[in-house]
Amino acid sequence: MKTQQQIMTDYVTAFLDGLVAAGIQKAVISPGSRSTPVSLLIHRDPRIEYYVAVDERSAAFFALGLAKASRTAVLLVCTSGTAAANYYPAICEAKASRVPLVVLTTDRPPELQHVGAPQTMAQDGLFGKQVKSSITLAVAEDSPELLRYSEWQGRQAVKKACQSPAGPVHLNMPLREPLLPNLERRNYPRVEDHLIAQTTVSLTGYQSLFEKKGVVVVGEERTAEEARLLLQVADTLKWPIIGDPLTNLATCGVTSQQHMRQIDGLLSSATFTQLVQPEVILRFGRLPISKNVMLWLKGLPGDVRWLLVDDGQEWLDQLQVATDFLPYTVTESCQAILQLPLKPCADEWLHVWQQEQARLTKLIHTATWPTVLSETSAVYHALEELPAETQVFVSNSNAIRMLDRFIQPSEAVTVWGNRGVNGIDGIVSTAAGIACATNQPTILLTGDLALFHDMNGLQMVQAYQLPLTIVLLNNQGGGIFSFLSQRTLAATDFDPLFATPTHLEFAQVATLYRLAYEKPTSLANYQTRLKEAVTSRRPALIEVQGTFDEPVTIWEDFLRQVQTQGSDR
Amino acid sequence: MKTQQQIMTDYVTAFLDGLVAAGIQKAVISPGSRSTPVSLLIHRDPRIEYYVAVDERSAAFFALGLAKASRTAVLLVCTSGTAAANYYPAICEAKASRVPLVVLTTDRPPELQHVGAPQTMAQDGLFGKQVKSSITLAVAEDSPELLRYSEWQGRQAVKKACQSPAGPVHLNMPLREPLLPNLERRNYPRVEDHLIAQTTVSLTGYQSLFEKKGVVVVGEERTAEEARLLLQVADTLKWPIIGDPLTNLATCGVTSQQHMRQIDGLLSSATFTQLVQPEVILRFGRLPISKNVMLWLKGLPGDVRWLLVDDGQEWLDQLQVATDFLPYTVTESCQAILQLPLKPCADEWLHVWQQEQARLTKLIHTATWPTVLSETSAVYHALEELPAETQVFVSNSNAIRMLDRFIQPSEAVTVWGNRGVNGIDGIVSTAAGIACATNQPTILLTGDLALFHDMNGLQMVQAYQLPLTIVLLNNQGGGIFSFLSQRTLAATDFDPLFATPTHLEFAQVATLYRLAYEKPTSLANYQTRLKEAVTSRRPALIEVQGTFDEPVTIWEDFLRQVQTQGSDR
Repeated sequence: MKTQQQIMTDYVTAFLDGLVAAGIQKAVISPGSRSTPVSLLIHRDPRIEYYVAVDERSAAFFALGLAKASRTAVLLVCTSGTAAANYYPAICEAKASRVPLVVLTTDRPPELQHVGAPQTMAQDGLFGKQVKSSITLAVAEDSPELLRYSEWQGRQAVKKACQSPAGPVHLNMPLREPLLPNLERRNYPRVEDHLIAQTTVSLTGYQSLFEKKGVVVVGEERTAEEARLLLQVADTLKWPIIGDPLTNLATCGVTSQQHMRQIDGLLSSATFTQLVQPEVILRFGRLPISKNVMLWLKGLPGDVRWLLVDDGQEWLDQLQVATDFLPYTVTESCQAILQLPLKPCADEWLHVWQQEQARLTKLIHTATWPTVLSETSAVYHALEELPAETQVFVSNSNAIRMLDRFIQPSEAVTVWGNRGVNGIDGIVSTAAGIACATNQPTILLTGDLALFHDMNGLQMVQAYQLPLTIVLLNNQGGGIFSFLSQRTLAATDFDPLFATPTHLEFAQVATLYRLAYEKPTSLANYQTRLKEAVTSRRPALIEVQGTFDEPVTIWEDFLRQVQTQGSDR
Repeated sequence: MKTQQQIMTDYVTAFLDGLVAAGIQKAVISPGSRSTPVSLLIHRDPRIEYYVAVDERSAAFFALGLAKASRTAVLLVCTSGTAAANYYPAICEAKASRVPLVVLTTDRPPELQHVGAPQTMAQDGLFGKQVKSSITLAVAEDSPELLRYSEWQGRQAVKKACQSPAGPVHLNMPLREPLLPNLERRNYPRVEDHLIAQTTVSLTGYQSLFEKKGVVVVGEERTAEEARLLLQVADTLKWPIIGDPLTNLATCGVTSQQHMRQIDGLLSSATFTQLVQPEVILRFGRLPISKNVMLWLKGLPGDVRWLLVDDGQEWLDQLQVATDFLPYTVTESCQAILQLPLKPCADEWLHVWQQEQARLTKLIHTATWPTVLSETSAVYHALEELPAETQVFVSNSNAIRMLDRFIQPSEAVTVWGNRGVNGIDGIVSTAAGIACATNQPTILLTGDLALFHDMNGLQMVQAYQLPLTIVLLNNQGGGIFSFLSQRTLAATDFDPLFATPTHLEFAQVATLYRLAYEKPTSLANYQTRLKEAVTSRRPALIEVQGTFDEPVTIWEDFLRQVQTQGSDR
């Protein structure tokens, strides 16, 4: 007869075997008592690499970063009670940005539910609509059926999380005392790789469309491989291609004449937008970040054909205009287009775009701001002369917009962000997860509020000595609001609700978390310090003193020039 | 014809009028764009006092503290997206500990839902079973019906949150642009107080039970008034009364001979537990924290009568043994008992308890540990010579257990904790909320992991210069596990998963958040510093250097003495 301890050990072991068989390689564990069997068995399992994070909110964003960068599902493990609720922000982001997470919350057994037992709350279905699936597992029993069940639940959770559209999956595991498992196990079955059959897609039915005047519009995070393929498609079609920093069109190592950068400025000129009337829009996923792209697309006439590519088949179309739905991956659809025997559209179509692009690039190059240290110039120069494979994470609010507006073709780096729900939470931890998974120098461009919000994430950076360089754009509070209608408010209304400075000395934050700290006073100094920090691979914080108005002033000056000179043409 | 701005302004104004009419006086706002109309109209509203917190997780725990201490519902306001998900841990705690919160998440309008619009996720029903009610409001329109609706939704949310069992209520408000409201309003209708009729309860049917040998067992947070009433009932019945630090039986200003302190030690002796066999148990709410109380109650014979008092009528009974259910408040049921013409049980019943209590008190007084600075002695002496009305917040894990085990009758202070789900999250922010609502000197007794988990809460302490003294019991990680089965593990298994020290210098945390900092080296020094800090009413951090083993060693020595001498008797 098996002991209770052995029954529990076998049950959890079978579950872990299932997870591993389906592809789990990394876990993030938060300390706790109820989760003891799971965390100890993972600790002893050579097949799973694990990290420990005390703050479950950071843990979950760290797992998000790991999963993004390693492109596999990552396991989260926590104890019972509010611990699990701290995962929620990252789960919402993972759902929206389709990142596979297997969230394992441990729980007290059924007999302790709904009777007022301590550290017990309704964990079943805790994450509502924000997970793809939520299951409360059976309690361990001594039967072959339950071992099969446990192993199967582990497998299917990973498969569900990874299946397109990928996302978070929740398993709630009730565990009875004793909580210490038997740690004697020695043999760990190997993981079997199962290849998924490749789909071959044909788009011959669309051939005539691809010979018209079109624009490729790309949204969401894209890998360098995907970006290069997308650029190749644009090149073949002789269409301009539009993205944002996360689509990595500018940073995939290929400099493309088709790629329209500074697109927010480009499409700010009414003279120009009237010139460019496409017949076809080929869209990949959600819209890029630029508001002017959205407004331009929204204003296009009703007879434009819109092809929307989404292998997740969620058909998220903010404009609600798509006419054709292509349920394929970026790779599948690009390869299908490249195989068509096309007669691409006339060169003039692209030339109009390229001329305007050249004009804007010149405007930037003749401006004075790129030579002075400021928030904007710090972002503008952040991507220069980086080691190959550097990772760049841009926080929401100002950082990603400034990069989008002034990005230049760059070395092969990879740009990341949390643009599923665009929160300013979990930014440090997500970037830390990316640094950890890639083991490459990683730059985080962030404002002071986002850094404050996730300061606990610095604990992971310190504990695992991650190669993360944080470029802090310190505009003392909610600088993003200087771009929004709120800035028309009187200071007495604006300051308490929107400026909200934290009054923290970030040099002291660096001391606390043992980050190398620099506060450069000139642009040259900033560029040197940034390069040193990135090359050193040691955790570092570089503080750039910003002002509330500078990003707006630079941007509005730029727009004025775009529009004035544009109308002169 | 009203402008869109005016329609939105009137709609939100009506909603706020409803909230105020039903009793909202305080709000905690987190900065954001979508919430602009609500936050600006609150900012201008003289009837609502508001606080700003950048980190929504801290914001929600701060609101929890405000609501606990002010005994009214508190409003939370945030923008759309993951911001709202950060509220979740505090919402779970509020649900379990029955604290009224009105959670207002603002949202994008329906036409931007499910189409991939940025910063948009399914906020409807976001908090699942953890809220009493969840409503997505209608979009503002220009009609008297919708103004009535909006005002009514404000009212009913507060009423629902406050109705027993009190708890969190969620409202999700979609808002269209423009987001700047009209700020011209000048007249604010007064709040009308509606008194709720008092229920008169009769317990004559139970008279004979109250004349038997009984024990009063009190759980959950109780006010000083409730504690004094409970002691009076015990005094009248000649029954011993058992609670924990949060029930405030030891700290309500009345020194009671009926109140059994050090109950975890008292009931650790098998000799003693065999002596005391009650016929009746009168229970108020959940069980107190002591594990030995739980085990003793669990082992009582089946013919004991169990009266369970719960006006929330959730009948949470971890032991599943209650025989009689009294759906009344503490005050109602105590007053009903005090009105019975009772012939209380014989003195002998109480004497047995009192003798053992005296023996334990003597054991403590002759021990050496109360004279040496340690985690245990720091907690033991923390409640001495405090200014009247001092508030004491005890974190979970070690702090509350040490206080429970060695608590002495004290001045009138109020002890608080988050014992709904016992998380180590949100501790600093909740204590800050209590300091803010009471405006009284407040002591927080916490370990280093809980302090780390909610370090962002220190921002509120600094910003509002709250009279909070943090006593940090720094045992470098998960000291609680030294009391649990996990400590039998080898160090190679234990350290990475359960010790989990943060390696932070808390003196630097104090610098960062501008807290006065002390690290006393002797008990006398600690006592002086603590008194100074409390009296100064300035934010302060007092670090007590603990060790992993000390709390366990002291406690086990004590238990050995209790049992040895007990069996000699």
